[in-house]
Amino acid sequence: MSFENDESIIIGIDPGTVVTGYGLIRVEKSSYRAIDYGCIRPPSGYKLSDRYLVIFEGVCALLDKHQPGVLVVETQYVHKNVQSAIKLGMARGVTIVAAKSKGIPVFEYSPTTAKMSVVGNGRASKSQVQGMVQRLLDLSALPTPEDASDALALAICHAQRLNDYSTASREI
Amino acid sequence: MSFENDESIIIGIDPGTVVTGYGLIRVEKSSYRAIDYGCIRPPSGYKLSDRYLVIFEGVCALLDKHQPGVLVVETQYVHKNVQSAIKLGMARGVTIVAAKSKGIPVFEYSPTTAKMSVVGNGRASKSQVQGMVQRLLDLSALPTPEDASDALALAICHAQRLNDYSTASREI
Repeated sequence: MSFENDESIIIGIDPGTVVTGYGLIRVEKSSYRAIDYGCIRPPSGYKLSDRYLVIFEGVCALLDKHQPGVLVVETQYVHKNVQSAIKLGMARGVTIVAAKSKGIPVFEYSPTTAKMSVVGNGRASKSQVQGMVQRLLDLSALPTPEDASDALALAICHAQRLNDYSTASREI
Repeated sequence: MSFENDESIIIGIDPGTVVTGYGLIRVEKSSYRAIDYGCIRPPSGYKLSDRYLVIFEGVCALLDKHQPGVLVVETQYVHKNVQSAIKLGMARGVTIVAAKSKGIPVFEYSPTTAKMSVVGNGRASKSQVQGMVQRLLDLSALPTPEDASDALALAICHAQRLNDYSTASREI
């Protein structure tokens, strides 16, 4: 069975080899509604290659279930640990190819852009992001874990760009 | 149609967003035979996410065609350019997940180990590696490009480990 992807559904993914957060929203006329959010956690004893498979299959399952029209990831910067950056890059590559293998375009935003978009402050804390994501999506509780909240923030960031053509979004 | 993977076939992959080299060998009693080698080159105008898809689908097609029992990649180190390392990490993640999605285990060796294994010198040049790969596989011409030769060297490196249990190989 095959459906057309739903252009009004956006999935944000915050990839990581330990926790990969995800968040799906539906864009309605002037508001956003949360469809699903949570995280993919490969079992702790798994070796790295099996972790990537769990992430790939987990993301594919979400895409099959919800048929989003676009996938959004965070721009990757390197901070201190380069080996961690490589591992994160691999998880990110796996996420991107999951989307592209289903014909879904991939966009990226910097963490600063996502925070600015949701909180109005590019240096907002993770708990400030959680609070604003809860408000914008009218959730009854704070979205947890933070990885899921960050993924929802990415989806919201992209949704806001759809309504504001003055701000460039970046397809990768 | 589904076949059991052939444990005597090893595929080496040298991933990259511009050129991904591949090399497949069959391990016979005391020798190795080249089955196929070459490279996957995503069209130059493609954006990064489409490049990953070309690599993923290219590797999947090779796995489906030849049904290798194991996939071998090079250990990734970071040299100068960290952004390049992240891109390479993503191509590497895509390669690893292609193998794991088909139940194929993934091993890695450092460039030094692969060169030591094939040439007997961990600091051998790429052209020395090409020459020895040609000899070991009894090829009528030098294997080109170097990315394909490097991929064949990785496969040979793993094959030699299979016959020498004193040297640990590293499943990732």
